[in-house]
Amino acid sequence: MTDFPVAEFEARAEAAQRLMAQARLDALWLTTEAEVRYFTGFRTLFWQSPTRPWHVILPAKGKPIAIIPGIGAELMAATPVDDIRSWPSPRGQDEGVSLLIEALSGMDRIGVPMGAEASLRQPLNDFNAVTAAISAELVDCTPLIQTLRFVKSEAELAIIRKVCAIGSSAFARAPDLFRVGQPLSDAFRAFKIALLEEGAEDVPYLVGGVGPEGYGDVISPPSDAPLAEGDVLMLDTGATLQGYFCDFDRNFALGRALEPAKLAYAALHRATDAGLEAARPGTTCAELFHAVAAHLGGDSNVGRLGHGLGMQLTEWPSIAPFDQTVLKAGMVMTLEPSIAVTGTTMMVQEENILITDGAPELLTTRAAPELPVI
Amino acid sequence: MTDFPVAEFEARAEAAQRLMAQARLDALWLTTEAEVRYFTGFRTLFWQSPTRPWHVILPAKGKPIAIIPGIGAELMAATPVDDIRSWPSPRGQDEGVSLLIEALSGMDRIGVPMGAEASLRQPLNDFNAVTAAISAELVDCTPLIQTLRFVKSEAELAIIRKVCAIGSSAFARAPDLFRVGQPLSDAFRAFKIALLEEGAEDVPYLVGGVGPEGYGDVISPPSDAPLAEGDVLMLDTGATLQGYFCDFDRNFALGRALEPAKLAYAALHRATDAGLEAARPGTTCAELFHAVAAHLGGDSNVGRLGHGLGMQLTEWPSIAPFDQTVLKAGMVMTLEPSIAVTGTTMMVQEENILITDGAPELLTTRAAPELPVI
Repeated sequence: MTDFPVAEFEARAEAAQRLMAQARLDALWLTTEAEVRYFTGFRTLFWQSPTRPWHVILPAKGKPIAIIPGIGAELMAATPVDDIRSWPSPRGQDEGVSLLIEALSGMDRIGVPMGAEASLRQPLNDFNAVTAAISAELVDCTPLIQTLRFVKSEAELAIIRKVCAIGSSAFARAPDLFRVGQPLSDAFRAFKIALLEEGAEDVPYLVGGVGPEGYGDVISPPSDAPLAEGDVLMLDTGATLQGYFCDFDRNFALGRALEPAKLAYAALHRATDAGLEAARPGTTCAELFHAVAAHLGGDSNVGRLGHGLGMQLTEWPSIAPFDQTVLKAGMVMTLEPSIAVTGTTMMVQEENILITDGAPELLTTRAAPELPVI
Repeated sequence: MTDFPVAEFEARAEAAQRLMAQARLDALWLTTEAEVRYFTGFRTLFWQSPTRPWHVILPAKGKPIAIIPGIGAELMAATPVDDIRSWPSPRGQDEGVSLLIEALSGMDRIGVPMGAEASLRQPLNDFNAVTAAISAELVDCTPLIQTLRFVKSEAELAIIRKVCAIGSSAFARAPDLFRVGQPLSDAFRAFKIALLEEGAEDVPYLVGGVGPEGYGDVISPPSDAPLAEGDVLMLDTGATLQGYFCDFDRNFALGRALEPAKLAYAALHRATDAGLEAARPGTTCAELFHAVAAHLGGDSNVGRLGHGLGMQLTEWPSIAPFDQTVLKAGMVMTLEPSIAVTGTTMMVQEENILITDGAPELLTTRAAPELPVI
């Protein structure tokens, strides 16, 4: 059993194989969690362990082939994959290398994700050993994978809607969860528990910031410092359901809100309005960036004003001046304007949206128009 | 502020630089979460986002150099690292490549982790662009990194002891958390909440299995099937505190325990006894494997009977026949015997231990000698 019916995986493979035919690729060679899961449905937190490499080969025709450690064979057998080749791992040598050489030999062109946002989740020594032993040309298949994963299926959307709703429900409990005097680390812990209670499966990502006029950065773990009256608390969560993420934040002022924070918050809200107005099929990510940025003023160090979302906390494309990706119905994006408040502090606001043929569908319960005081 | 005093990072760099001098390395080039954190103290869940590459260069002398996206510059500035080179990321091109070429030019030999359990957390295209532009020979520094990270400092041990105690406290609440009729997914959720309540910062890893005579595999996410009387429930958790993991499991029988499960459990307990007896400085991991395996009988598909533990859920070495690593005082290990119960089911039992000059220190509250019935 996987999270989707077999037809979902057939459709994914067929869509990939159409693009592979255009690119004259004999196979895709995939090693990363999201790609392995996308084509097989193999979902496990065991990726936390770096010990063992996992490989999926998608041939030009037919089902994917899994070349994986024995410890995963039973779980993989519950997916639609029929051809599972495993070895007793770890064994200190030949961690799948000979099986890969056998599977990839005789091919001319093999797609490997080598571009933006890609990693190689296998030892470079092993990768080099395989590529030296086969005669194929390696071709960067990052654009192909992006094209596939950009647009979500109805089955994927059903899960993403749910996890965004779970995040919204947890944020709605903020007045009961956060208080003046509470150590920030306790606020984080309380919010993680709330997300789980609301139905999240996991909370792989929770960062935040705190300060009376915004916060210094947006990726820090919490300190034990107590929340103070007048502070703005921002929490940004990536909770998951069946391996799909929400990714959004909320700001709360404790007791009272200072004027600079209120003004910055309102500007972020207007920038989000502009983003919701501009996010239409046919618009490029660069155009969307400029529509949102017009309400902000100046660069932050975040580098973009939103991004794709789905099996990973952040996916391509980027809402950024460089990204000429054209929005299409079915893409799930974050709108994430950020604004400088003082010389050293900033504020952020984030929503998750689905691009549709009309106005985007808000997947998150929209942030209040004025900075909420709790 | 980081999780450790500055002296900790100075000691890590100096130890690395001694080994680098022996290996005639001009620098280490590191891209993965654990390695970046090990040398800098830079801790964030933002690694969940695959968008941006992060680099730390440890030169032959002096402090590490961080070559990182602007979004992380403020957090990195709070570490002992002085030399922080950043760019506005993502920008669609030159994601740190020119900064890396500048930093690595003129060097002869650069250490890159390319061996067992290593990944390359940057686009292969970018890695290739950098290595093509510099003249250095790349040398696999996996053994060097292993040597450093095998033995934990007192400061690291203090955190690991705490997170193991948190895990033990959460498991002690099992009778209140799990019950017949409860969907397995709810049991997982209840246990994650218990871990957070007991003080865990995060629960990046929780897997489990269930069945009257053991379970089919040990890496699966939970189904919604209800727990039944006579089932054995096994939960295996990797909870974290300040970025350090515990990694252990416990088994509980619901209502009553079947004889095959009781016998398998007792064998696992004896195997653990043998492991605790054999785990001494000077013993190899292979010898420890055979001491434990003598009580089990036959291979499982897990591939090993324990492993290192610390900044990652699993670290080298492996308690496996191939691993000739010699145990030293200060190493933190899991003892993780597994045993077949029926043709399709198995059971596991896991403890976390610290190798000392005498008997190992149990970091986990030892599992009961007989399968607990709740």
